[in-house]
Amino acid sequence: MSLFSSPIIDSLNQLHREYATVTDGTVATYIPELAKANPDWFGICLVTSNGVVYEVGDSRQPFTIQSISKPFVYGLALEDNGRAPVLQKIGVEPTGDAFNSISLDPGTGRPRNPMINAGAIAAAGLIAGRTSQTKLGRLLEMFGLYAGRDLVIDKAVYRSESDTGHRNRAIGHMLRNFDILTEDPAPSVELYFQQCSVSVTCRDLGVMAATLANRGINPVSGRQAIRGEYVENILSVMGSCGMYDYAGEWIYNIGMPAKSGVSGGIIAVLPGQMGIGVFSPPLDARGNSVRGIRTCDALSRHFDLHLFNRPGIGKPALRLKFTGAELSSSRVRMPQESQALRQFGSSITVYQLQGNLTFATTEVVVHDVIESAQSIQYLVLDYKRVLSLNESAAWLFCELLRKLSDCGKSVLFVHAERTPLLRRYMKAKLRERFEQLFRAFDDNDLALEWCENHLLEAKLPTLDADRVAAPEEFELFHRLDPGEIACVTALLQRRVYRRDEVIINAGDEARELFLLMRGTASAVILLSSGGKKRLATFAAGMAFGEMAIIDRAPRSAMIVADSEVECELLRLQDFNDLSQRHPNIKIKLLENLSLGLCSKLRKANRELSVFD
Amino acid sequence: MSLFSSPIIDSLNQLHREYATVTDGTVATYIPELAKANPDWFGICLVTSNGVVYEVGDSRQPFTIQSISKPFVYGLALEDNGRAPVLQKIGVEPTGDAFNSISLDPGTGRPRNPMINAGAIAAAGLIAGRTSQTKLGRLLEMFGLYAGRDLVIDKAVYRSESDTGHRNRAIGHMLRNFDILTEDPAPSVELYFQQCSVSVTCRDLGVMAATLANRGINPVSGRQAIRGEYVENILSVMGSCGMYDYAGEWIYNIGMPAKSGVSGGIIAVLPGQMGIGVFSPPLDARGNSVRGIRTCDALSRHFDLHLFNRPGIGKPALRLKFTGAELSSSRVRMPQESQALRQFGSSITVYQLQGNLTFATTEVVVHDVIESAQSIQYLVLDYKRVLSLNESAAWLFCELLRKLSDCGKSVLFVHAERTPLLRRYMKAKLRERFEQLFRAFDDNDLALEWCENHLLEAKLPTLDADRVAAPEEFELFHRLDPGEIACVTALLQRRVYRRDEVIINAGDEARELFLLMRGTASAVILLSSGGKKRLATFAAGMAFGEMAIIDRAPRSAMIVADSEVECELLRLQDFNDLSQRHPNIKIKLLENLSLGLCSKLRKANRELSVFD
Repeated sequence: MSLFSSPIIDSLNQLHREYATVTDGTVATYIPELAKANPDWFGICLVTSNGVVYEVGDSRQPFTIQSISKPFVYGLALEDNGRAPVLQKIGVEPTGDAFNSISLDPGTGRPRNPMINAGAIAAAGLIAGRTSQTKLGRLLEMFGLYAGRDLVIDKAVYRSESDTGHRNRAIGHMLRNFDILTEDPAPSVELYFQQCSVSVTCRDLGVMAATLANRGINPVSGRQAIRGEYVENILSVMGSCGMYDYAGEWIYNIGMPAKSGVSGGIIAVLPGQMGIGVFSPPLDARGNSVRGIRTCDALSRHFDLHLFNRPGIGKPALRLKFTGAELSSSRVRMPQESQALRQFGSSITVYQLQGNLTFATTEVVVHDVIESAQSIQYLVLDYKRVLSLNESAAWLFCELLRKLSDCGKSVLFVHAERTPLLRRYMKAKLRERFEQLFRAFDDNDLALEWCENHLLEAKLPTLDADRVAAPEEFELFHRLDPGEIACVTALLQRRVYRRDEVIINAGDEARELFLLMRGTASAVILLSSGGKKRLATFAAGMAFGEMAIIDRAPRSAMIVADSEVECELLRLQDFNDLSQRHPNIKIKLLENLSLGLCSKLRKANRELSVFD
Repeated sequence: MSLFSSPIIDSLNQLHREYATVTDGTVATYIPELAKANPDWFGICLVTSNGVVYEVGDSRQPFTIQSISKPFVYGLALEDNGRAPVLQKIGVEPTGDAFNSISLDPGTGRPRNPMINAGAIAAAGLIAGRTSQTKLGRLLEMFGLYAGRDLVIDKAVYRSESDTGHRNRAIGHMLRNFDILTEDPAPSVELYFQQCSVSVTCRDLGVMAATLANRGINPVSGRQAIRGEYVENILSVMGSCGMYDYAGEWIYNIGMPAKSGVSGGIIAVLPGQMGIGVFSPPLDARGNSVRGIRTCDALSRHFDLHLFNRPGIGKPALRLKFTGAELSSSRVRMPQESQALRQFGSSITVYQLQGNLTFATTEVVVHDVIESAQSIQYLVLDYKRVLSLNESAAWLFCELLRKLSDCGKSVLFVHAERTPLLRRYMKAKLRERFEQLFRAFDDNDLALEWCENHLLEAKLPTLDADRVAAPEEFELFHRLDPGEIACVTALLQRRVYRRDEVIINAGDEARELFLLMRGTASAVILLSSGGKKRLATFAAGMAFGEMAIIDRAPRSAMIVADSEVECELLRLQDFNDLSQRHPNIKIKLLENLSLGLCSKLRKANRELSVFD
């Protein structure tokens, strides 16, 4: 249980109290069953594109969906037939006419849009399926996906619709006359009566609207109700024709694609953000719910939801940008390497991206890269926090990759698996160059190390990967004379590890300090997800395990041999005994250990400041 | 100079090449001057809401703005009169009629919308100003702000418009007849001819459109062209009526509010993201530029710009969330304090916010806080990276503050000065409770320290701020026996500093280690902006300056006394000499220093992992 109610629920309750007293409007009576509605019924439901549901009032009262079914069935017609064939049968121009107008194009007989009855019946006629039963089944399945629960037809309302639907039958025959319907119109008109009689609640309307706001994926159930590409078409006809001859004022005042129904429901959709469902049976002269319009108007004003009232996006895709001079990989470096990285590392630039990558958000990144392309030799693009990426963003990244590669620069893609379209798109566009150009990494740190290795290769003489380090190379032995070094090395114990062998286990008691003589080893932690995260990689000439020697804490990470590894171990006991036997050596060793800790701490503090 | 061209420019060039070969459509001839246009002229310009301009082709060719002036003048009429009086004179319903239709409401004579000539003339009649000259001056000034440069009237076109504008004069008299225009209609009709004759380029159109996309602020010049609140109204009438009887199809296919003109221009606006201007004189039967429509259609498809095709927003406002157990303030703590913070610090929760805070983005944050309100005692809201905040977001934060406060919890606002509306709103709503509830901090670190101090006060016995530390309290002296401590303290030198006195200067040679006996001192760095950033604060019983003693690096930060401060200094020379005189003491001191470094390094590494 929450400690207190959400201010959003409070606000919806307040609106509900305020508009519950409004008694304007009359319940629709043209179908006897609708006339039975209680004029006091009043529910409000707001559902975010993250699937949070806010509902107040009679949000669970069932009623028939009526005309609000039209955009959803139109969407199914688009899925079943594709855009062009549907456009041939049904226009998309607003009529400016009232809700019950017939509005066929005088020449072609094409209904002006799918939100008037003629267009909706034509859309019902386009639903795929060999039998009426199949078509109805597909229709109910679709509604169920939008609502996140099984929906059924209110049989009494359906009979009532069918008994009184003479005007709609007339429309059916007119559509047949113009060959918009190419077979007996009766089943399509019947299907239309059925779709109007689907029983929903105000909560269902909210979830259905949120599904449209969320590109067709029901944000509560996570299931896809319609292919995302058709959502813009559904919302377009809602935006231009959803509120009958009130459409212009609605967009002007409320600013969201919407659809109303004669039973008193209204849905409104703020794309990407939320869906709203309101239910209250009394209607105004234009056939829209009186409390519904007032509520949506108040919500739009109070919550500032108008679609066209958007601040400039800023740089939302760019979470963090830093260079290899500011932040290093976990590969532990020799002093001269660290020096080179601080000097030349600014030619490595990492862009951490986030959120939804569309044309506008990606443009900001691409523009920034192009502005600083002169100084970039290695570009790391990290998609770890990217939520979505569309084709235009993929295109921009692909062009950027092509252009940077043509200038001899490298582009590394980290966590590209988060946005599978990126790889697919690039593979299709780059063809035989793909393997060479598209460098994918699972981890930002590995990408950074790759860049550093290439940079160091260019700037420093290469060290033989298989060389054996000499004791005097170790920072631990700095300023010790040969005799003192010999005195310590006499205490060391040699160990050899196979590739992938565990050298230290996390949680182990700390008993030795390790001098890595040959090969490389990495400190890793096991993630709860089952994967591994690398903390550091050590090469010949470096020590590890020294912190635990100092503070006696259990080993915090696992150390694994990356190759065959040769170590010399200084046992804690021997190290301690030096205090008595060779205090001056002990002092030098402690000073060297402190120096190493200082330099690590300074590096960590520098890196922390990058995130500030 | 950039190293290579932007892929966006490449793409615009390609579209330009492709559609330059289209020869459909005819140049408007109803005004003789317009007939002189070269049908080959073709420019494309895209301007982002961050002010980046992409232009190709004849983007600098002057032409007259014609009907594209209508939404801008309508906006000025709204600014001059307010929404309600303008709505009384001019409707906002699409007509579905052709561009030159008169479309007055048969009853009231109210033009159906401001995008048809009748509505535009009525809007011109609403421009404030005592003389025609003043009105024209204000109109040109407004256009200049939108375009970011002074615009002038093309006199030849204006004369031509005026000579042939009989239909518009008839409309003027009809408007006078219905009292929509309440004085002689001639000056309003003349002003309308003048607004249509303003000379612009395709680049101007792009910038003007981007100004609408950026809530009325020209993103190139940074200057406000219209109050943000009216932008949604302008875009609404563009969305429902901007493309004449092509409006429905336009929104369906291209999905952006738009306006076209008879001289061949089109503007399209993607709110918050970008503006597009296209110019090419040949028109189709509906009076829209042929190449203009094709270009916008291709841009919308290629760049995926349809307004209704938006992915779910995700959690864009939530940059980072962490607790006081994961990340501490820069206040250096005694071991038992650090222990308490690690144990109880999770009751401090920091939300780093970012981007544009609107209802939908803020809901995500508020919902998350409410879900975890049980475990939060101190809530820190950091607005440092927030770009904008609207009133509905301010309301949500205000309610959250009120509810958390009522439960005895504290809310801290960091960098609230980034969004002045927040403080204004809260002050107005909370009134006398404001001073007590609204805790504002300039810095996340100071807010975190405030929370920690309150938490420690509740969890640990208070330490007297003015107490004098005993030598054995110092970590440096752990495991030294009293004799050894006496041996070291004999070397110490006492120093007293006034409040605000500089104890160490950045860049100084490191010559001493400081033991803070009384008072508090902070390490700060001076920012290039002139401000100071606190790196750490030390209290009695802590040492500072020890890293420089080890690695002999020059002092990296300035240390300033926060109160009167008493220190004991251990000089580097004396510390070094201990190796010879008291090696065992030296060993213990070095071990203790190493231990301190270890614990700092482990803390820094933990903190770094928060940002991963």
